[in-house]
Amino acid sequence: MRLLHTADWHIGKKLAGFDLAADQAAIFAQLVATAKRERVDAIVIAGDLYDRALANEAAVTMVNDQLAQLNRTLKYPVLAIAGNHDSAVRLATGRDWYGATQLYLNTQLAEAFTPVVLGDTQFFLLPYFEPVAARQYFDDDSLTNINRAMHRVTQELQAQFDPTKKHVLIAHFFAANSHRSDSETQLAVGGLDAVDVADLAAFDYVALGHLHNRHALDHPTIQYAGSLLKYSVSEVAQEKGVFILDTDTMVRRFVALPPLHEVQHLTGSFADLTDPAHYAAVDREAYTAITLTDVAVIPNVMTALRQVFPRTISLQRASSLKLDAAAAAVDPKLGPMPMLADFYQQVQGTALSADQTRWAKAALAQAREGQ
Amino acid sequence: MRLLHTADWHIGKKLAGFDLAADQAAIFAQLVATAKRERVDAIVIAGDLYDRALANEAAVTMVNDQLAQLNRTLKYPVLAIAGNHDSAVRLATGRDWYGATQLYLNTQLAEAFTPVVLGDTQFFLLPYFEPVAARQYFDDDSLTNINRAMHRVTQELQAQFDPTKKHVLIAHFFAANSHRSDSETQLAVGGLDAVDVADLAAFDYVALGHLHNRHALDHPTIQYAGSLLKYSVSEVAQEKGVFILDTDTMVRRFVALPPLHEVQHLTGSFADLTDPAHYAAVDREAYTAITLTDVAVIPNVMTALRQVFPRTISLQRASSLKLDAAAAAVDPKLGPMPMLADFYQQVQGTALSADQTRWAKAALAQAREGQ
Repeated sequence: MRLLHTADWHIGKKLAGFDLAADQAAIFAQLVATAKRERVDAIVIAGDLYDRALANEAAVTMVNDQLAQLNRTLKYPVLAIAGNHDSAVRLATGRDWYGATQLYLNTQLAEAFTPVVLGDTQFFLLPYFEPVAARQYFDDDSLTNINRAMHRVTQELQAQFDPTKKHVLIAHFFAANSHRSDSETQLAVGGLDAVDVADLAAFDYVALGHLHNRHALDHPTIQYAGSLLKYSVSEVAQEKGVFILDTDTMVRRFVALPPLHEVQHLTGSFADLTDPAHYAAVDREAYTAITLTDVAVIPNVMTALRQVFPRTISLQRASSLKLDAAAAAVDPKLGPMPMLADFYQQVQGTALSADQTRWAKAALAQAREGQ
Repeated sequence: MRLLHTADWHIGKKLAGFDLAADQAAIFAQLVATAKRERVDAIVIAGDLYDRALANEAAVTMVNDQLAQLNRTLKYPVLAIAGNHDSAVRLATGRDWYGATQLYLNTQLAEAFTPVVLGDTQFFLLPYFEPVAARQYFDDDSLTNINRAMHRVTQELQAQFDPTKKHVLIAHFFAANSHRSDSETQLAVGGLDAVDVADLAAFDYVALGHLHNRHALDHPTIQYAGSLLKYSVSEVAQEKGVFILDTDTMVRRFVALPPLHEVQHLTGSFADLTDPAHYAAVDREAYTAITLTDVAVIPNVMTALRQVFPRTISLQRASSLKLDAAAAAVDPKLGPMPMLADFYQQVQGTALSADQTRWAKAALAQAREGQ
């Protein structure tokens, strides 16, 4: 059996105010073309179909139409789960009817323990859940974080294993030691929000969603699909697409999907970036984050830049980045005077003068007296 | 064939801030019991399943569960349409799958022209639509109001008639010469928002939703189901329930459904209403609108009343009603001075004094100079 594994569609998402509907429609068409060309037997969607729990009507129409196209028009079995961006309640609308045409959609933890069997494989569709849901389901107050909860959940999933079948888990969480991008919503603060991958060893393949970088975790049997589009500037270097999994061999292969508009990050002076000789070689239609190397004030800078790059999504100054870096580089353990001297040196490029040092020490003494 | 005809569920509605979820769950249970007892063959829901286009998750869960209970658990064919309170887009989620189990749900005008055939009857499920939808569907700019649009729509519906079948229309609009309640959303201002009932003559039965009073229109073949609950004080005298229609005879019969909590309107003095001897005979659990006959200020009046009537939904003074009536009784054609004199007489019970008349005339003259 051949599966197409995708995740993190985030339908309805805007990028710095730009509506991505056309981009999302185009990438979905690429996904469909890939499914046909690769002659896949089923589609796996590992969560975050929507960008927001309360999606607008245009987003609802798009998701409804896309699921209908995959499952009703093209007759693909679909194995889908709710992610942390989806409203489990809203996404569940129609669920009781979907199974009749092999659209399997799980939104509640309790639903995960009934596997879907296609061919020689048991599929476990585990939606995003919070530890409290596991505490309630197992009536076990010790499941205080997602790692403990997943340890218990995977035990229960394995209890449903048919040993004559292969076992695929479809899930949506942060796996330990994965790398984040800026566009993912962090699920919790601290280290216990991560799932120990040792708990996933029993599965022949784990089709994950949540992290937008398909390289977030490098593991023989666990794979993030990655988002379908670049949803933040931190993802500019990431190639987006889908995985094709062969369940006979459990070998997976990445298929890149080209976006309607790229996302890029340009650094340069205002004069260079707005010079036709320079920008002729640049993709002006891309969603563009710009870092200006200028220090002078430029009137109406955003308006001027958008005349060249109509999809400018952010603008910052390289000089402010230098300041940030300088501040971060100073070791706070040195104490106030060495820190100030170090910071001044890094930002101004010269040392504090004798007068400046005297003034700073006096101010510091005064501040201490006031404590 | 026997049908249960209901409409205007308004799931998610609050009454003066009170959550009606328990009331709506209880009345739905009554509806189900009635369907079983009457051995109906199908359920007709003529729009406004939801109270709001953007329903909260609790409301979404309730509607999803109720449709699943009727159609999946109890196996009733369901014939439903979107009303003006529903989001056509959100309500349509799952629609492509529902038909397989005879849950027929139309949310767009274009869907109305494909009848659903059950037994000897063609059902036309015409959702709420605005004239602009008809102008687009028929490419006819002359359909500037709902009356013209419905005239065209009914022509088109009749073109689909199978003469060997009976014809039932399920729709959601304001029929001309119907009586309104306060809890319905008025669809448009002016007389052209009303549908001429002459256009509905071709149908053997028209199962309507929108108006909350089942007596809103008295017609041999056109029937408003009425809302399932009393959703405003103006509906206190209305008996709520469902209709049972026999499609062999096209005879309908009303079945009253008792609510979990009544809605009532009490008028009396604060002393009487809070006197145990008085309120012992009153339904204290009802949603209660109170009109106080007192004129004196009563500190913390709402708190005190809610100790007796915990579901107090409104409070007004009879004296303010008297003022309104007095103001309304003055004939504006008399001109300002006679109107003032008349108004003063009605409110104060005495005539304007000579001084007062002089002051009023001076103020009036000053106002005229300033024009």
